Amino acid sequence: MKNNHSLVKELNLVKKLIKNEIIEERTISNLYKYIFKSDGKRLRAKLSLIASSLNKKKNKKRLQLAAIIELLHTATLIHDDVVDDSQTRRGVKSVNNLWSNAHGVLIGDYIYSKAFVFMVQIGEPKILHELASATNDISKGELIQLDALQNISISLEELEAISYFKTGRLFEASARTGAILSGGDTNFINNISKCAKYLGILFQIKDDLLDYSLSAKIIGKPVFQDMKEGKVTYPFYFAYMNADNNDKSKLKAYLGKNKFNMEKPYNLICKLDGIRETELLASEYLNRAVKAANAIKNKYIKEEMLKLINSALYRKK
Amino acid sequence: MKNNHSLVKELNLVKKLIKNEIIEERTISNLYKYIFKSDGKRLRAKLSLIASSLNKKKNKKRLQLAAIIELLHTATLIHDDVVDDSQTRRGVKSVNNLWSNAHGVLIGDYIYSKAFVFMVQIGEPKILHELASATNDISKGELIQLDALQNISISLEELEAISYFKTGRLFEASARTGAILSGGDTNFINNISKCAKYLGILFQIKDDLLDYSLSAKIIGKPVFQDMKEGKVTYPFYFAYMNADNNDKSKLKAYLGKNKFNMEKPYNLICKLDGIRETELLASEYLNRAVKAANAIKNKYIKEEMLKLINSALYRKK
Repeated sequence: MKNNHSLVKELNLVKKLIKNEIIEERTISNLYKYIFKSDGKRLRAKLSLIASSLNKKKNKKRLQLAAIIELLHTATLIHDDVVDDSQTRRGVKSVNNLWSNAHGVLIGDYIYSKAFVFMVQIGEPKILHELASATNDISKGELIQLDALQNISISLEELEAISYFKTGRLFEASARTGAILSGGDTNFINNISKCAKYLGILFQIKDDLLDYSLSAKIIGKPVFQDMKEGKVTYPFYFAYMNADNNDKSKLKAYLGKNKFNMEKPYNLICKLDGIRETELLASEYLNRAVKAANAIKNKYIKEEMLKLINSALYRKK
Repeated sequence: MKNNHSLVKELNLVKKLIKNEIIEERTISNLYKYIFKSDGKRLRAKLSLIASSLNKKKNKKRLQLAAIIELLHTATLIHDDVVDDSQTRRGVKSVNNLWSNAHGVLIGDYIYSKAFVFMVQIGEPKILHELASATNDISKGELIQLDALQNISISLEELEAISYFKTGRLFEASARTGAILSGGDTNFINNISKCAKYLGILFQIKDDLLDYSLSAKIIGKPVFQDMKEGKVTYPFYFAYMNADNNDKSKLKAYLGKNKFNMEKPYNLICKLDGIRETELLASEYLNRAVKAANAIKNKYIKEEMLKLINSALYRKK
C-alpha cells in the first residue's frame, strides 16, 4: 500500500520534471504545454521507476530517467500521428491536426533531442546505448509496418517483429535502463527486461484487439482504423489464415477501404476465429511475461510487474 | 597539397563508413541507398575532419565523428523537405516526393537515432552533449522560422538567431566536437568553434541571397522560393525596412503568393537595397569568421578554415 502510494507520488514528480522543461520561445512553449496537458498512462515511466526501485540511492536520476523515457515515447506518438494522419490523440486534437504536419515533425524532433540532452546528463553509457538503440528500433518497426500496408501475405513472425520493435522495444528499454541505474545484477536486469518486453508485445496485441471491438465503438473510441488504413494486424491475419477462397476475397476487399459498414467485416473476422486466436496469442505472451516476472527475486518489484501485466490484459482503452 | 589530398581521401572514407551502414530490411535499405546516392557538399564532415586533424591519433574515431555529423545533417534535410513540402533535394526527387511524408518522417528518425547510437560508441560525454544540444537547437530554429512565416515585423536579431540555430549551430558543433576529440586546448576549441559558427551564418546568408538570384534561375535552380513560401529572409527584410508606405504594401502583397512574375518583386527588392545590404551583412560575418580563423595557431587548420570561408563567400549553389 505504502509502496504503491510512493509510485504514484514519483509519477507526479516525473510529470513535474517534464512540465518544467518549457522553454522561452512562445511557439515551442505553446506546443509543449498542449502536448503534456493531457496525461497518458505513463506506463513506460512507471516501468522504469519500478525497475530502478531496487536501489533508491540515485533517486534524482531515477526520476530523470523516467522523464526521459516519457519524452521519447511522446516524440514517437507525435511523429506517428503525422505518419498515420491521425486527427486525435488522448482524446484531444493531434498536433498535426491543430497546428500542421510541419509542427508535428519539428516538435517531435525537438522533444527527441531534448530527451537525448537529458540522457547525456545522466552520464551512464549503457543507458545511453540502450535508449539510442531502442529509439532506432522503434523507427525501424514503424518503417517495416509502413511497408507492410496492404500486404496480405505478411507472416505471423513479421507481425510479432513489428509489435516488438514498435512497442515491446521501449517497454524493454524502460525496464532495462531502470534496472541498470539501480545497479541490479545481470539476472535481475535480464528478467525484468524480458518481462517488460513480453508485456509490451501483450500491450500491442491488446491494442490491435481493441481496434476490433464493438464495445470500444460504444464508448466513442474510433475503431476498425487498422483495417481502414490497410494495416494487417492479428485479428485480420488469423481470420485470413482460416478463410476459404471466397472469404479471402471478401477480406481482401475490406482492407484499406475507408467507408463501409463495419458490422459485416467484424462478423466475418469473428466467424473465422480472428478475435479468438488473437486472444490465444495474447495469453501466450501473458504466460511468458508472468514467467519472467516470477523469476524476479525482489518481492515488491515482482508484484508490481504482475500488476502491470494484469492491467494490460484487462485494459479497456 | 598533400594535406588537401588527404582531406579528400578522408571524406571518401567517411562516405564509405556511411554507406556501409545499410541494414537488412528492404525498405530501409532502399531508402538509405537512395538518400546517400547523391552526394552533398559534405561541408560539415569536412569541418569536423579539419578540426580533429590537430591530432590524428584517434583516426578511426575522427572518421566516425565526421560520419555521425553527416548523418545528423542528412536527417535534418529529410525532415526539412517534409516540413517545406520540397519536391527536390540535391538535384533528385525528395524522399517525401518519391515515397511519402510518412517515409520522410520515419527514415529521418531512423537516421537521427542511428547517429546517436554511433555517438554513444565514440564514448566522449562532451561530444555527446554538444551534438545532442546542437540537434535540439536546430529543431528550435526550424520551429521559430515556421512561426515567423508571413511575419513582416520580424527583427534582424530574430533573423540572425534563426540563421544561427538552423545552420550556424551544426557548423559550430562540427568544429567543436572535432576539436574536443583531437584534445586541443580551450583556446583552439573556442577559436575554431567561433570561426565555424560565423562561417555557418555566412553560409545561410549566401543561401538566402542565392534564392534571390536571377543567375541561379538561368542555371535552372528554383528561385524566389522563400518569398513564395511567405518566409521573410534578409533581402526581403532590408528592402522592407527601406521602403516607403507604398512600396511596403507592394512587398507585403508579394509575400506568400505562389504565382506571379518574379521580375517585379526582384527589381523592387534590388531598388530598395535588399540585395546590397544583405551582401554587407555577409561581409560582416565573413570578417568575424576570418578574425576567428586568424586566431588559430595551427597553420594547416587556419588555412583550411580560410579556404572554407572563401568558398562559402563565392559559392554559386
